[in-house]
Amino acid sequence: MVIPGRAMATFRLALIQLQVSSVKSDNVTRACGLVREAATQGANIVSLPECFNSPYGTKYFPGYAEKIPGESTQKLSEVAKECSIYLIGGSIPEKDAGKLYNTCTVFGPDGTLLVKYRKLHLFDIDVPGKITFQESETLSPGDSFSTFDTRCQLLVYPGAFNMTTGPAHWELLQRGRAVDNQVYVATASPARDDQASYVAWGHSTIVSPWGDVLAKAGTEETIVCSDIDLKKLAEIRQQIPIFSQKRSDLYAVEAKKP
Amino acid sequence: MVIPGRAMATFRLALIQLQVSSVKSDNVTRACGLVREAATQGANIVSLPECFNSPYGTKYFPGYAEKIPGESTQKLSEVAKECSIYLIGGSIPEKDAGKLYNTCTVFGPDGTLLVKYRKLHLFDIDVPGKITFQESETLSPGDSFSTFDTRCQLLVYPGAFNMTTGPAHWELLQRGRAVDNQVYVATASPARDDQASYVAWGHSTIVSPWGDVLAKAGTEETIVCSDIDLKKLAEIRQQIPIFSQKRSDLYAVEAKKP
Repeated sequence: MVIPGRAMATFRLALIQLQVSSVKSDNVTRACGLVREAATQGANIVSLPECFNSPYGTKYFPGYAEKIPGESTQKLSEVAKECSIYLIGGSIPEKDAGKLYNTCTVFGPDGTLLVKYRKLHLFDIDVPGKITFQESETLSPGDSFSTFDTRCQLLVYPGAFNMTTGPAHWELLQRGRAVDNQVYVATASPARDDQASYVAWGHSTIVSPWGDVLAKAGTEETIVCSDIDLKKLAEIRQQIPIFSQKRSDLYAVEAKKP
Repeated sequence: MVIPGRAMATFRLALIQLQVSSVKSDNVTRACGLVREAATQGANIVSLPECFNSPYGTKYFPGYAEKIPGESTQKLSEVAKECSIYLIGGSIPEKDAGKLYNTCTVFGPDGTLLVKYRKLHLFDIDVPGKITFQESETLSPGDSFSTFDTRCQLLVYPGAFNMTTGPAHWELLQRGRAVDNQVYVATASPARDDQASYVAWGHSTIVSPWGDVLAKAGTEETIVCSDIDLKKLAEIRQQIPIFSQKRSDLYAVEAKKP
């Protein structure tokens, strides 16, 4: 999920590390309660985790999937408007025309749906003796970008890493992305549930464009909060001017029409 | 510097963390001595650090620069042949047609020059109170790739980070590149000289495709060695099949003719 450059020079970002249960309506209700709590802490942008209204797992996706707009996203729209915040709705299993998607929605402070993004790169892994999991068993990938802005300033990833990739790659990848692109990076994970079939790593995190960890959760349900200072980001881009040194005469990353 | 996929399933890589002095001929002689020592330790590929025959600094580059082929690269060719190894010649200041470049050469086991690569992205930094340095003051960037292989298995970066970027980014960037691309990554730095105008970070490192640090130097002159197992790399690429999930229908990184 990419939030393009915004007019505010500083704003407050909050990540909701939700404890996801098997009861969909409870998940949505608790998520909205924590969004309200984050807003009272001054958050301007709030993100929920990946798969926030359903346990994460291919066997759950068909039963929990819904249309967009639908019951869960209607609640997200309402709470975004009530709190007058930008709300990144983590993701939910979406069903549409007989297919399932892992889909993120973003709502504006007036409750309008701004973005709908279907996960493009599904997560498949097979590490013998550790973890075998294939989103592609039941999910279909999306077919379009929600944006293709290469000068964005904040990347927010609702993500559910596991007990194999979590300790190895969770913090590394977000710090790497932050320094590579000189952007703030935030990751919103579900809280850990050791009894779940897929155990989430937790550790929702906010990283500065210099690669420093600004705020980081443990494994339990919590709100992670940090101020995001776009003047600081502009300074770092001046200090190490990697953008002006790009060699667009020699290479390019290009979007294609599918 | 990119070493494309090779027929050997495993080989030994050594990095020479050279203590660079102000005497060019001494630097070259000691570098060749350490290459011989690495070869006796069974190394098949050896890399020298960035700017190995000259102190690193824009005021030094004009005085130390030479043609390629020239005195320093002639010695590299000879020692590669003598030891029957692949030798990545870190980099040297190169002069050609009135311009200066930061240039890497690679020699084969028969002493042949295989690759000449002029640094494409020069290093400019200005962090007030910490470090101000601009390669672009005296150097020109290169204009061509030595390769454009997107399935390579080992990336070797001769690099001289400093006391600001070193602690913040040196290990992070190489571990990030390793996991992003599922490749081995190696970085060869000069040894630290606290009296130098540009103090190198040291800590030459070899990282696995899973992001684990396999071998890492301190700050002093030393040889860092690790076996590189391409079967292990192939396993990791099967475990998390990011290559087969690329969406080349939606985006592409493309090389352009300058």
